[in-house]
Amino acid sequence: MQDQSQSFLAKGPDRCADLSFAERLRAAICSDRDLTFLMEAHDALSGAVAKRAGFKGIWASGLSIASSLGYRDANEASWSQIVDVVERIVDSTELPVLVDGDSGFGNFNNARLLARKLRQRGAAGVALEDSCFPKMNSFVGDRHPIADVDEFSARLRAVKDTVADNLVLVARTEALIAGHGMDEALLRASAYAAAGADAILIHSRKSTADEILSFANSWQSRLPVVIVPTKYYRTPVSTYRDAGISTVIWANHSMRAAIAAMRHVCGRIIAEESIAGIEPHIATLDQVFDLLGYDELARAEARYLRPSDLQQ
Amino acid sequence: MQDQSQSFLAKGPDRCADLSFAERLRAAICSDRDLTFLMEAHDALSGAVAKRAGFKGIWASGLSIASSLGYRDANEASWSQIVDVVERIVDSTELPVLVDGDSGFGNFNNARLLARKLRQRGAAGVALEDSCFPKMNSFVGDRHPIADVDEFSARLRAVKDTVADNLVLVARTEALIAGHGMDEALLRASAYAAAGADAILIHSRKSTADEILSFANSWQSRLPVVIVPTKYYRTPVSTYRDAGISTVIWANHSMRAAIAAMRHVCGRIIAEESIAGIEPHIATLDQVFDLLGYDELARAEARYLRPSDLQQ
Amino acid sequence: MQDQSQSFLAKGPDRCADLSFAERLRAAICSDRDLTFLMEAHDALSGAVAKRAGFKGIWASGLSIASSLGYRDANEASWSQIVDVVERIVDSTELPVLVDGDSGFGNFNNARLLARKLRQRGAAGVALEDSCFPKMNSFVGDRHPIADVDEFSARLRAVKDTVADNLVLVARTEALIAGHGMDEALLRASAYAAAGADAILIHSRKSTADEILSFANSWQSRLPVVIVPTKYYRTPVSTYRDAGISTVIWANHSMRAAIAAMRHVCGRIIAEESIAGIEPHIATLDQVFDLLGYDELARAEARYLRPSDLQQ
Amino acid sequence: MQDQSQSFLAKGPDRCADLSFAERLRAAICSDRDLTFLMEAHDALSGAVAKRAGFKGIWASGLSIASSLGYRDANEASWSQIVDVVERIVDSTELPVLVDGDSGFGNFNNARLLARKLRQRGAAGVALEDSCFPKMNSFVGDRHPIADVDEFSARLRAVKDTVADNLVLVARTEALIAGHGMDEALLRASAYAAAGADAILIHSRKSTADEILSFANSWQSRLPVVIVPTKYYRTPVSTYRDAGISTVIWANHSMRAAIAAMRHVCGRIIAEESIAGIEPHIATLDQVFDLLGYDELARAEARYLRPSDLQQ
Repeated sequence: MQDQSQSFLAKGPDRCADLSFAERLRAAICSDRDLTFLMEAHDALSGAVAKRAGFKGIWASGLSIASSLGYRDANEASWSQIVDVVERIVDSTELPVLVDGDSGFGNFNNARLLARKLRQRGAAGVALEDSCFPKMNSFVGDRHPIADVDEFSARLRAVKDTVADNLVLVARTEALIAGHGMDEALLRASAYAAAGADAILIHSRKSTADEILSFANSWQSRLPVVIVPTKYYRTPVSTYRDAGISTVIWANHSMRAAIAAMRHVCGRIIAEESIAGIEPHIATLDQVFDLLGYDELARAEARYLRPSDLQQ
Repeated sequence: MQDQSQSFLAKGPDRCADLSFAERLRAAICSDRDLTFLMEAHDALSGAVAKRAGFKGIWASGLSIASSLGYRDANEASWSQIVDVVERIVDSTELPVLVDGDSGFGNFNNARLLARKLRQRGAAGVALEDSCFPKMNSFVGDRHPIADVDEFSARLRAVKDTVADNLVLVARTEALIAGHGMDEALLRASAYAAAGADAILIHSRKSTADEILSFANSWQSRLPVVIVPTKYYRTPVSTYRDAGISTVIWANHSMRAAIAAMRHVCGRIIAEESIAGIEPHIATLDQVFDLLGYDELARAEARYLRPSDLQQ
Repeated sequence: MQDQSQSFLAKGPDRCADLSFAERLRAAICSDRDLTFLMEAHDALSGAVAKRAGFKGIWASGLSIASSLGYRDANEASWSQIVDVVERIVDSTELPVLVDGDSGFGNFNNARLLARKLRQRGAAGVALEDSCFPKMNSFVGDRHPIADVDEFSARLRAVKDTVADNLVLVARTEALIAGHGMDEALLRASAYAAAGADAILIHSRKSTADEILSFANSWQSRLPVVIVPTKYYRTPVSTYRDAGISTVIWANHSMRAAIAAMRHVCGRIIAEESIAGIEPHIATLDQVFDLLGYDELARAEARYLRPSDLQQ
Repeated sequence: MQDQSQSFLAKGPDRCADLSFAERLRAAICSDRDLTFLMEAHDALSGAVAKRAGFKGIWASGLSIASSLGYRDANEASWSQIVDVVERIVDSTELPVLVDGDSGFGNFNNARLLARKLRQRGAAGVALEDSCFPKMNSFVGDRHPIADVDEFSARLRAVKDTVADNLVLVARTEALIAGHGMDEALLRASAYAAAGADAILIHSRKSTADEILSFANSWQSRLPVVIVPTKYYRTPVSTYRDAGISTVIWANHSMRAAIAAMRHVCGRIIAEESIAGIEPHIATLDQVFDLLGYDELARAEARYLRPSDLQQ
């Protein structure tokens, strides 16, 4: 008999047996009923926090994971290092995880290998962007080169042919950020839809949502639209609902919250030469243990260890 | 000519060429002059924050790293997964890193393999505790079994024989936490000193420092004493200075600060369906880029990329 | 449309969707019809060779994998390093792989974590032995300690409760090798059967099969019996058929063949200062390319790359 | 006191403390006295065999490592997976290892990151080739695109600026294989020398050495010349000596010998349903144990384990 607790070790039905992560992500993104929100995670811990807070899906952010690893968001981290982090996030959340796959780490062959490995580790979907390898973060520098539309469409087709419906495929276009204009963005979205994408992620670095709303208006939901309002954060989500947007990604906010908090705490400890002052403001150890499912381990020890091992 | 910036890629002299990390950690721990403070890190990002705040040394915490990976502090993470995280912390901080090596992940042979690998990845030191494998976090459950004193002393000797002075060896005794009393703690400290330890970490889960102060008083600094005041956090550090303590480890506070902040931010985003409210309270993207040395990459691109690659 | 070639990238139905690896291994081990043979592999290449030769199942040998990694068969390799190698073997063979899980790398909790991870990477089964951690290879030294029967049975139960029928669980007893006699071996086999094992691996280091035949005779196939005739290699397999043995593991012969061949070739190159003499005796590059599915990549390039990328 | 045995665990002076691997490789490649031979290894085991046979340096082949991992030589393996394999080879051989770094896995930034990591894991040198990412094996297909000479020169400069003299930098040109002719090859060699390369690897897929001899004749040893006579294997090494070649790489022969042997053994076991016939032709277990230094472990156990642990 299995215990149904927070720990992935004891989570009931085997993840691989049902394809629910991809199915659940697809249902969430494709549903007309309401906006879907995906919360950024960069490691198992941030994933566990997001789940506990109530999020139903996770965005495994390239920027955040790179930052957590001490890399810059310029494909310094290898694809296999990213895959390993994603595995930890999936295991700790048991939620659908959409993975930021950058440009697929090379050509069609690298992209389909990445997709297959993400699928194996339990990811629900991958977002691939029409940038070149190595990429640079969309918010750093100007006018990054973007991939040829036919070449990138073939990259998408190769992924689709490899993972079929077992991994949601989100095609992300950097056309607006690269300064290629709305027509190019729409043309690319159409091409990527034809190539088999399940949804279109339209990215913008403007401080208002005008650009993406204009896209959504022209696009007419031919495929679900996913957005990342990091720069145009002031826009109320009602606007997105009205525009027929499918999914909103809060792309890096746990990582940025963690940095601010760690900086604050480090600064106070340095200044105060003491942890007494910050103790009330940080998570307790019991909260850490609760978050990571130590209770499941205690119950399992009671079940599987001999009394002599337990009491000592 | 090399650029001297925050990025480890551009950091001046090759880390391996000078043995400064171990030397610097040894000097800090063994110096009579003042307390040394080590700040917890669980990934490259928390390490970078600690460094920027002014800390001169890092504690790569077993509990925190396990939490970051979604594992429980019960040797669920493999030794090689820990080593990989330590590598990232070392690379991002370029500071002396003392690694929580738990019990060494097995017997003397596993312990010396761990030590050699940590040395290779640039760690400055390892702390090994006299617990059994797999261990359980010192603050969870009661009266964990501890290792035979002779067997553990031999584990220390094997490590010392392997890494010589190229890795600081801190012997941690769980004697007090396991309920074996002060005499046993002192006996073990003596045995571990004889086995080649460079310092003694005396651990306590009491809410006051009485226990460790009593130890320090009896021990008379035969080797430097390292403490972890997670539970007796109210004691002012002047007390440790007076007692001749060498080093204080703030063992998990960045991780706990990150959890609290991420929980808060996740909760607000869920409640407000917006990131506008939390935006002023989290690190800006520019701060993220600054922390991870994106400026070095920009300068390097100007130096090594052709104008045609840069301008597009 | 997907290409059905040798490359795992293009292998038709998604591996995770059907549970066929575990099902196929279970059917092979539990079938009364005939002996099942599992061939050792220690990396993807040896796996690919075994498959091409006609083997229908793979033994991911602890000794061989450790040797390939330069470790000794004493749990020097971490559990996650083993899991990574198994993933490569599964991907390259697309065959049921039974993994040598040693003692489970710790207690019940480590064992069930290992099992879950092996399941995730596509392994069909795991063999766990009643030795302690760290283990030493069964053929090295004398009278290794073995685990308490109740403790090990609980380890098996924990694994079974975690992976259910999605991973075949083979319980291996070292009772004979440890000198505990036939009664103890039978008692342990019964206990492990009761704990949920799918099959019993009875290990012997005798140069004849008497010991395991005696076991098989007494055991009466209460569960299928798996053997490893490394030391009693002269016994014809008809003997095993007659004795009702289920499965024979050729446990390390590809690795040992590779060593002999590489030693021979290295010696000749050193002596002859030339590769001309050995060229006819080693695999051609075309055979290497054929073995690893380069033809699939060529076809995929024709499909997914633009002519301009191909011709250049 | 340390034991001086075959095991890297017990190898005397700490590898990082002396920079001898890079120094030794540089001395070997730059010496006028005689040809240097590097033997291919693809894992720790093949490395150990090469060392035991008498080779003084290792070529960590991209093709062979990819094959061992079940990947095609088209940058399917991630850079970090390659680095992990190299670590194992270095640890098992304690010899200078020149690593096939392909094109550096991206742009200058990826290349310098790779170089720094290889340095950290103990590699003695890296060979970078002027191909694009992802690459395709030089012997597969026709006329692969090669990198712009200025862009690739900058890649080399970035690596040199990062690792200085702590890693030997071999620049490999694919100019001849890509059909660009001898003038282009010489022009590129000059550019790479100016960029800081320590040696030039001139690659050819012709079945005679004419091409590389013509290159060597024109080049006049402005930098040491490294060759890979996989295709022109019939040329006697005296020809290379006369031509002033510095270093000959036997690039994939252990891997190809292993394949042939494993194929043979698998085939015989299938056909004979027995391992009795092949037993005399493969390495014995004792030879395996000898190769991997089990004797060191036995001595260490006698030193560090209690009698009660040993006897049991």
